[in-house]
Amino acid sequence: MKRSLGVCYYPEHWPEDQWPDDAARMVSAGISRVRIGEFAWGLIEPKPGVMDWGWLDRAIDVLADAGLEVILGTPTATPPRWMLDRHPDMLAVDATGHPRRFGSRRHYCFSHAGYRAEAARITEAMARRYGRDGRIIAWQTDNEYGCHDTVLSYSPAALSAFRNWLAQQYQSPEALNRAWGNVFWSMAYDSFDQIGLPNLTVTEPNPAHAFDFRRFSSEQVVAFNRMQVGILRRHTAAPLTHNYMGREVAFDHFAVGADLDIASWDSYPIGFLSDRIEASDNHKRHYLRQGDPDMQALHHDLYRAVGRGRWWVMEQQPGPVNWAPWNPAPLPGMVRLWTWEAFAHGAETVTYFRWRQAPFAQEQMHAGLLFPDSSDAPGLAEAAQVATELKAMPDVAPTRAPVALVFDYASAWAWQVQPQGADFDYFRMVLCWYRAARELGLSLDILPPDTNDLSDYAVVLMPGLAQLSAPMLAALESYEGRALVGPRSNAKGAGMATPVPLPPNLPGMDLRVSAVESLPPGVAEPLSGGGTIVHWREHLDGAADILETDAAGAPLIARMGALTYLGGWPDDTALRRLIAAACTEQGIAADPLPDGLRLRDTGSHRFAFNYGKTPVTWEGQVLPAAGVAWRAL
Amino acid sequence: MKRSLGVCYYPEHWPEDQWPDDAARMVSAGISRVRIGEFAWGLIEPKPGVMDWGWLDRAIDVLADAGLEVILGTPTATPPRWMLDRHPDMLAVDATGHPRRFGSRRHYCFSHAGYRAEAARITEAMARRYGRDGRIIAWQTDNEYGCHDTVLSYSPAALSAFRNWLAQQYQSPEALNRAWGNVFWSMAYDSFDQIGLPNLTVTEPNPAHAFDFRRFSSEQVVAFNRMQVGILRRHTAAPLTHNYMGREVAFDHFAVGADLDIASWDSYPIGFLSDRIEASDNHKRHYLRQGDPDMQALHHDLYRAVGRGRWWVMEQQPGPVNWAPWNPAPLPGMVRLWTWEAFAHGAETVTYFRWRQAPFAQEQMHAGLLFPDSSDAPGLAEAAQVATELKAMPDVAPTRAPVALVFDYASAWAWQVQPQGADFDYFRMVLCWYRAARELGLSLDILPPDTNDLSDYAVVLMPGLAQLSAPMLAALESYEGRALVGPRSNAKGAGMATPVPLPPNLPGMDLRVSAVESLPPGVAEPLSGGGTIVHWREHLDGAADILETDAAGAPLIARMGALTYLGGWPDDTALRRLIAAACTEQGIAADPLPDGLRLRDTGSHRFAFNYGKTPVTWEGQVLPAAGVAWRAL
Amino acid sequence: MKRSLGVCYYPEHWPEDQWPDDAARMVSAGISRVRIGEFAWGLIEPKPGVMDWGWLDRAIDVLADAGLEVILGTPTATPPRWMLDRHPDMLAVDATGHPRRFGSRRHYCFSHAGYRAEAARITEAMARRYGRDGRIIAWQTDNEYGCHDTVLSYSPAALSAFRNWLAQQYQSPEALNRAWGNVFWSMAYDSFDQIGLPNLTVTEPNPAHAFDFRRFSSEQVVAFNRMQVGILRRHTAAPLTHNYMGREVAFDHFAVGADLDIASWDSYPIGFLSDRIEASDNHKRHYLRQGDPDMQALHHDLYRAVGRGRWWVMEQQPGPVNWAPWNPAPLPGMVRLWTWEAFAHGAETVTYFRWRQAPFAQEQMHAGLLFPDSSDAPGLAEAAQVATELKAMPDVAPTRAPVALVFDYASAWAWQVQPQGADFDYFRMVLCWYRAARELGLSLDILPPDTNDLSDYAVVLMPGLAQLSAPMLAALESYEGRALVGPRSNAKGAGMATPVPLPPNLPGMDLRVSAVESLPPGVAEPLSGGGTIVHWREHLDGAADILETDAAGAPLIARMGALTYLGGWPDDTALRRLIAAACTEQGIAADPLPDGLRLRDTGSHRFAFNYGKTPVTWEGQVLPAAGVAWRAL
Ligand SMILES: [Zn+2]
Ligand SMILES: [Zn+2]
Ligand SMILES: [Zn+2]
Repeated sequence: MKRSLGVCYYPEHWPEDQWPDDAARMVSAGISRVRIGEFAWGLIEPKPGVMDWGWLDRAIDVLADAGLEVILGTPTATPPRWMLDRHPDMLAVDATGHPRRFGSRRHYCFSHAGYRAEAARITEAMARRYGRDGRIIAWQTDNEYGCHDTVLSYSPAALSAFRNWLAQQYQSPEALNRAWGNVFWSMAYDSFDQIGLPNLTVTEPNPAHAFDFRRFSSEQVVAFNRMQVGILRRHTAAPLTHNYMGREVAFDHFAVGADLDIASWDSYPIGFLSDRIEASDNHKRHYLRQGDPDMQALHHDLYRAVGRGRWWVMEQQPGPVNWAPWNPAPLPGMVRLWTWEAFAHGAETVTYFRWRQAPFAQEQMHAGLLFPDSSDAPGLAEAAQVATELKAMPDVAPTRAPVALVFDYASAWAWQVQPQGADFDYFRMVLCWYRAARELGLSLDILPPDTNDLSDYAVVLMPGLAQLSAPMLAALESYEGRALVGPRSNAKGAGMATPVPLPPNLPGMDLRVSAVESLPPGVAEPLSGGGTIVHWREHLDGAADILETDAAGAPLIARMGALTYLGGWPDDTALRRLIAAACTEQGIAADPLPDGLRLRDTGSHRFAFNYGKTPVTWEGQVLPAAGVAWRAL
Repeated sequence: MKRSLGVCYYPEHWPEDQWPDDAARMVSAGISRVRIGEFAWGLIEPKPGVMDWGWLDRAIDVLADAGLEVILGTPTATPPRWMLDRHPDMLAVDATGHPRRFGSRRHYCFSHAGYRAEAARITEAMARRYGRDGRIIAWQTDNEYGCHDTVLSYSPAALSAFRNWLAQQYQSPEALNRAWGNVFWSMAYDSFDQIGLPNLTVTEPNPAHAFDFRRFSSEQVVAFNRMQVGILRRHTAAPLTHNYMGREVAFDHFAVGADLDIASWDSYPIGFLSDRIEASDNHKRHYLRQGDPDMQALHHDLYRAVGRGRWWVMEQQPGPVNWAPWNPAPLPGMVRLWTWEAFAHGAETVTYFRWRQAPFAQEQMHAGLLFPDSSDAPGLAEAAQVATELKAMPDVAPTRAPVALVFDYASAWAWQVQPQGADFDYFRMVLCWYRAARELGLSLDILPPDTNDLSDYAVVLMPGLAQLSAPMLAALESYEGRALVGPRSNAKGAGMATPVPLPPNLPGMDLRVSAVESLPPGVAEPLSGGGTIVHWREHLDGAADILETDAAGAPLIARMGALTYLGGWPDDTALRRLIAAACTEQGIAADPLPDGLRLRDTGSHRFAFNYGKTPVTWEGQVLPAAGVAWRAL
Repeated sequence: MKRSLGVCYYPEHWPEDQWPDDAARMVSAGISRVRIGEFAWGLIEPKPGVMDWGWLDRAIDVLADAGLEVILGTPTATPPRWMLDRHPDMLAVDATGHPRRFGSRRHYCFSHAGYRAEAARITEAMARRYGRDGRIIAWQTDNEYGCHDTVLSYSPAALSAFRNWLAQQYQSPEALNRAWGNVFWSMAYDSFDQIGLPNLTVTEPNPAHAFDFRRFSSEQVVAFNRMQVGILRRHTAAPLTHNYMGREVAFDHFAVGADLDIASWDSYPIGFLSDRIEASDNHKRHYLRQGDPDMQALHHDLYRAVGRGRWWVMEQQPGPVNWAPWNPAPLPGMVRLWTWEAFAHGAETVTYFRWRQAPFAQEQMHAGLLFPDSSDAPGLAEAAQVATELKAMPDVAPTRAPVALVFDYASAWAWQVQPQGADFDYFRMVLCWYRAARELGLSLDILPPDTNDLSDYAVVLMPGLAQLSAPMLAALESYEGRALVGPRSNAKGAGMATPVPLPPNLPGMDLRVSAVESLPPGVAEPLSGGGTIVHWREHLDGAADILETDAAGAPLIARMGALTYLGGWPDDTALRRLIAAACTEQGIAADPLPDGLRLRDTGSHRFAFNYGKTPVTWEGQVLPAAGVAWRAL
């Protein structure tokens, strides 16, 4: 696999006579790819039905003539203002019933048929014009589905579509009532047309109702994307991708990804640390200008799975951003580190967002590789350094990690619908497990929840899977490595109901979770092997071997054959200990790394990354803050 | 009085062939009563006007045949979905103007005449069918009035009813304008039809306006309940009750209770600690699995007063619940402790919620006496132990406590409408006083605000009564014990106005509160006798004897005859000291108990309860954590 | 200049036979002015078109006959209820789309033409009746524009007016699109009628859109006030004023003030400390009963500038208020201290709010100079003491301070629209700078942002001016003192765009801010000269001399000629050091004062104020807590 650098560029933001110089400077920095077009609907179709392709034709000419490969986006995340005159009801509606109006982006409801037809029309028009243009080496559909909380819409269009979806799922109101348990609180429906969206109820709605709305909403995103994919495929042979946003779990990225060729995601390490990671103030201060040391890696591995091996970083933070609560600048070297980390996890391309900082509109405080006055911003030199370093490196072949972690979007919805503890969150738990494994120097692969074979992995991590799929249950049945499973595993059946026999009901394991407890911050229960249980604990019984208990001897961790069940949320100390023990048993090296150091193996090299603020020694080599090192394996 | 145990049961949730076994297991656990029916409207009347009594007849048969006494609830808290087709405007509206929709429970506005007629119709139908059935030993109206903040509704129906209510109260707009002081800010009305509900005003509405809306809203609940009571009385001689929810003060429980025969309440000690008690993190961690040691006792005493001596716990937490921010499990023994504590306070019946944990819908994470797979949950054995212990105990006669505390719902509304300090809350203050008394080993009675005779009590506690009733003023005039009164006592006249002469204007006491201060957290002013003043302090003058002052000598506590006035909110140390001194003066023993220990006397026994996590010694006896002990008096 | 005391009085709240005694007691306390009428529309015009002047005539008679000078307010902040029958759509609408309803005050949208006409009508009526009455010595327009967040309205009237305003500003949609950068995210408009208000957008709206809405909204206030001024001027020669509210920055007070003769403001030191100052809990506890030692002074200097030398305190807190989160009472002496501080800053009149505490309606917990029972409240004696002291003092002439600070409302809007860090606030920053200067014993003048001559000031402080005006740039060009400029200075051009060349682009200074960083709480970067940078830091380059750096040597403070640029937000230590150094260089004494002590020079005297809780020594004199001292200069 060849690795390359790219950049996001908005020719429509700049005078046309600046384009050639911009393109030349990209190339001279070692950038070979450029993403364009994804917000340009208003330029392409300034009036309804009146197309202006000229500027885009010329932009592609200039960029391609400079030697750049073009990635072209469909512009459906930003319908122009005139669209609202045609479809006044196309806007999404928030959970309190307020429309989400024009004036920024993503102002559409996925369920609105009229807008979907318009999106098909512009996709078709772009595909016809550029689909067979060899200079376009990939297409991006829309932009960051779900960003700004845009998956769930409580609009009339969504209501109507949800009723239809339910009718197809359940076929009769009686079947729905049974599945949801609507005998409870006299909630039964006589007709699908009586069912509302699960917002504004007096107290919480039926979790089955809320969960089905989450499933429905995710499928609306999948269908919207599939519509674009279907059109594009008829006109182009170029690979298709979508740029997912970090920690966006409101729709099933595996399902969207199944229709695409390449997964890509938008990596903003410092923005994410400030905006969307549960961590202590100390942690946030320590990694202020580096970003969390595991957040990006987790996403890299996730999108490698979503892309079935092929994945990019479509937007890479190059300096301070504008959208987090606080927006410090990266430590010198971090842009290079982040880029190399992506490549170490198997990225084909890392594309910086954006070329030149815009002096106007919403993102004017978002850094680019150039300052607004066109002078070099610090990211540019770091990108250029990576480009140079890349040339000296061999191509890489895909490889497999020794340890796998199973990730499931539906579990994120299940635990949002029914957290049972105010700070229980699926992604948060997964990141804790992933972090513990990384602190042991492990490389991981991420697996989707319908994986039917685990035999390639010596150790498998499975925290919090609400419902185990049939293939996964089968895979566990024959699994001979070591799987760390739980808590809350297999705790939900259809309709978000508690299954009887009680969870986890794992193949061959006589173990029952009879009761669960959520624990407030500050409560930590010692685990007999070391570390503590926080946030969540379960009451276990059954014939499985008890490995660890609480201080009173109540079982917390049990084992039967290949399966170890964790009846609680272990803290970092305990997780590291448990994962290390599993690895040791399976002959995988797993030794705690110095603070801030992380490793990742490709097929050919071991990479080391220092996320810390001070130098750290790795294999006799001193890595400065933000330092990257590698050696051949 | 005989004491008994009961359980809440939903036959409609389970296959009919499971009912006999369920009933038999209840009986064998020592449970003699079962509450049913209160959410079953959709089962009883699946289509408008089409009644299905068969299943309920059979359920009563099965339960009664097993020897269980049935408590039957009217199902008006959960009108079926078809009700909304008949009355689309029956929903309550929240303070921001959004309807509170179908999909959970309590989705009705108390002021909606159409729904009220429907509620009368179903009550009449149930009363006709079962009113003379001797197996039904009590009726419950509706379920947890006010739960989920459902007393206040800003609907068109509420607006119309409020205007009518005001017209009857004031007879003329001029009278209302005078009473409210609408000369202020040119707020006068020319007609009752110009008056709106006190929501969405630019800044705070007139407190008189807001307070009248609170009074009106409370009376709507009273009227709704009275409607059901009137119907039931025509058909049954069985006692009537309602199950009040803990710390629900939005309507006057004394007024609802006056129409009923028995008061009952729903006791969730661990849920309440997490969800609705102001306490330090330390306190919440210490009592994580026990619940606050005074919260239940306060409610027990309150509902003994509301029920004029007759009261039950209608729902007793049996394990972890689902609705609090965090939901840990009870310490082993706590279910027994809570049950015995209720009996020690005079409960006739303690009914566990619920029999078997439901595997579906909103409360599937709420424990029962059985796990969802029908195996025994820990609460069952504790209930059975209490049943056995009860048999060995004599019946008890009502008794009177030596100390009384006056509780007044209207004061809760007054101080919510006009807190003057952001964290000032009436219930919070009452719980502080009650706690201090309990820490001294005292048993208390609670008195309603219109009590006209205090002579049975050596010590009376009267914190924060916004307006002293005429009977209470008369009672104080002749009182010869010791009353601790204040702060904010008698500070409001009609229309929430400040009376002149200024408060507290107590009989025979020359004392004036000229100014008041609210104090932020962290500010504590030393009281000359020990302890501090927090949250609230007053400036006192007058000829009353000054008992205590602040560090600068400004008066804070004054006395004249039987009355001691507290010009501030004493902390726990000071409250204990002041109450102990009053008791000592009156010859009542009042000695601080060890942490977590609480006592309660019945007519025949003294009970001791260890709410702590570690053993504690009481009268030479070691009580383990969650321990209960008693001795004859 | 003569100095006088006044009081706010509501004759309509009291029986007419009480007026003469009230007036006599005012006079005997040394009060010579009385403000009336500003909420009395409902009394003056009880029915539409039916005027009742009698009571007001008689009130003026009584007050004037007692020797009091009358300040008369237009009552447009409290339109009566009947107004809404005439103009149902006159209400403002909040950012979530909810109307802000009748039942308190300020229930009107500034953009509603119908209400504006009504306000003109009542103003005209009052002006005709009393404009030539010599007993009215000043007029107040409306009351506290902007209070309760009433400048921004999202009503249909505001939408329509905003579109018209934009059409006049930009003349064509194309020009607006260019100015706003609407090429971004395809946000271009084809017509002004397509533009919405910047609320309820999916993510943040274009900052240019939001900022123009702020400018528009401010101008609506200016126009509303100008309408009243125009009418009043035709009928009266008395000076006109408006009473601004503390820390109200949603409209341009300089622009409103330009139409008036006198500025006045409403000073609530203890309410402000609790309600609207960012400070540590320690600071808030330390100044609990004194108020922040710099908040009032800053406003005094600001309104001296807004009034072009003539200014009053129209409402002075006399005791505890009712509207802050917590409402403690002033330390004895503080009412006197606050009053003298206003005079030391050049106030002509200090008017207490209010005469007698009202026993009814919203402000019944707000102290007056009398308690509700008409007895003296503590503030009365302190006011009387000031009156006595005033007599012994000479008249004062205006004077000029040696140090100036530039204050700009548009910068407050710019940084609210685009804070870039969650806790970045313009007013907060200005108060930090002002505080540091005051801690050095300095007296300051405040200058508007269009100042064209700085030569009268040896030192000028200019924090955070989003855009430097042409006159200010010219003034800086020729300035020979020492100007401390930055951070974020001149960082915005038209349309909130980042200017190129990049900021600060100061005259004669080769310095560029290439990147900025916002820093979360707890992050502080050492400054080489001492102290730290918090909240905000910038990356500087250019040929200007570097005065100070961070620990790594990166420039943070630069100088060229008279200009020192601060590339960050210095903490109090650093600010004091930097301001002291500038003063020392310019020959101005600037020595740190003891904690809580503050100084202020008039033309004739130096005043000292002890805001602390303990005595402090100043020039050999011991000032007790709340002490005031002065000596001739
Ligand atoms: Zn096609
Ligand atoms: Zn709303
Ligand atoms: Zn005129």
